[in-house]
Amino acid sequence: MFKTSSEPTVDDILYRIQSTIEYDGTQFHGWQFQTNSISIQQIVETALYKIFNRKIITFVAGRTDAGVHAFGQVIHFDLLSAEYEKFKQNLDKIKLAINANMRPFPISIISANLVNQNFHARFSALNKTYIYKIINRPEPLTIQKNYFWQVHKLLNIEKIQEATKYLLGFHDFSSFRSGECQAKNALRTLRKIMITQYNNEIHIEYEAQSFLHNQIRIMTGTLIKCGLGHIEPEKLKEILSAKDRRFAGITAPPSGLYLQKIEY
Amino acid sequence: MFKTSSEPTVDDILYRIQSTIEYDGTQFHGWQFQTNSISIQQIVETALYKIFNRKIITFVAGRTDAGVHAFGQVIHFDLLSAEYEKFKQNLDKIKLAINANMRPFPISIISANLVNQNFHARFSALNKTYIYKIINRPEPLTIQKNYFWQVHKLLNIEKIQEATKYLLGFHDFSSFRSGECQAKNALRTLRKIMITQYNNEIHIEYEAQSFLHNQIRIMTGTLIKCGLGHIEPEKLKEILSAKDRRFAGITAPPSGLYLQKIEY
Repeated sequence: MFKTSSEPTVDDILYRIQSTIEYDGTQFHGWQFQTNSISIQQIVETALYKIFNRKIITFVAGRTDAGVHAFGQVIHFDLLSAEYEKFKQNLDKIKLAINANMRPFPISIISANLVNQNFHARFSALNKTYIYKIINRPEPLTIQKNYFWQVHKLLNIEKIQEATKYLLGFHDFSSFRSGECQAKNALRTLRKIMITQYNNEIHIEYEAQSFLHNQIRIMTGTLIKCGLGHIEPEKLKEILSAKDRRFAGITAPPSGLYLQKIEY
Repeated sequence: MFKTSSEPTVDDILYRIQSTIEYDGTQFHGWQFQTNSISIQQIVETALYKIFNRKIITFVAGRTDAGVHAFGQVIHFDLLSAEYEKFKQNLDKIKLAINANMRPFPISIISANLVNQNFHARFSALNKTYIYKIINRPEPLTIQKNYFWQVHKLLNIEKIQEATKYLLGFHDFSSFRSGECQAKNALRTLRKIMITQYNNEIHIEYEAQSFLHNQIRIMTGTLIKCGLGHIEPEKLKEILSAKDRRFAGITAPPSGLYLQKIEY
């Protein structure tokens, strides 16, 4: 078996690039490569292929679902010496090259930096910030249609606020994970959960080192159930201790969710 | 000549309805009816036709151009007694009916109120607020693509700020009107011009009783020219006194412009 010249060997020095990436998730079937539909990963890796003429795998901080947006997603990938050489004078040129090759898809590389080989977009993350955006009004949305969850009936913000305190901190979030969640356990620490209201716009900001699959969308669906008066805030204690997905509220739609920031 | 029963006669008592209307201007060729392309007026009047089975003309506060958005556009239209009768218990039902008949277009009636026959959406307006939104960064836009003007090179906000003071107040704005402007004269009072910056997002808020055609977009294009250092802020004095469109900057793209509020 011969290796083609473009395949990395163990002797090659690899240069790890970290990039912040922004995207409008509306038209994509999420981050991860899918065989029968278009993913963000596919667009990014196709651009890398066009530039380097080699399959380069990208690793992502948070695999967002279909329709979920990102302002601060982070990825990493490795370049071979010869590949890195061309760009090392000005890493901004990698950013320009990838962006040029992703046109006209609404995906944008915001930065590209050389990082240590120990860096891993997903496993090195110390903190992740997601924002869930809601518009509370009965009239159809126009400009904000794909970028918010529209809740028609009037929400009681105080009830939502009250309910958040039960979710904050270290819990077994089994009731707030999708059936498809692959995580070994559901023990997570929710470090921050903050409600901000601007007229009929409500933002819920969540921070943790990591989240379970659909955790934020299920927490949001459950908080909104409190805001609509369908359950009392203190019911959250019971939902948490049930450790059963069926006790929590609906999975809020992906359109309102934004991966805002990853800290390392 | 016989009138059909559905046509209003001078004897009919007319009920004037005022509505606030919101829309995403991206896909439309502006407010005004066009013979060969889709306009917002056409969608609204088609919905009214479907509800009342009669051609009902709408009058608008500010005829926005193709691609311009509105959160607070205002229209009025007249209903006949029999038409009004069906909705008078609950005018919100007119709003619901129009919205249902405009689906899936990104246009939304936010309110419907009965007003005096003296009310005119355009001529009764005492103050109009427009907001022009800019993103200042080199990387392509994703989520904000159709909703901002992207300026790639770094802007000097202080220069823009300084330039605004020359535009504020009563002036002949001939240099800041489109060649197609129909207004008799270009004398206008710009009551407010305020710059707000959030990271790389810049909002310019404009207030006046009325604006000339493309006035806000040309003023914005000229302010950005100052922000880029292509002209000095005090050059605005000269541009104003030239009373010639060719002296001002480019007409900023429509995607960044929002009709925000009309006061009566």
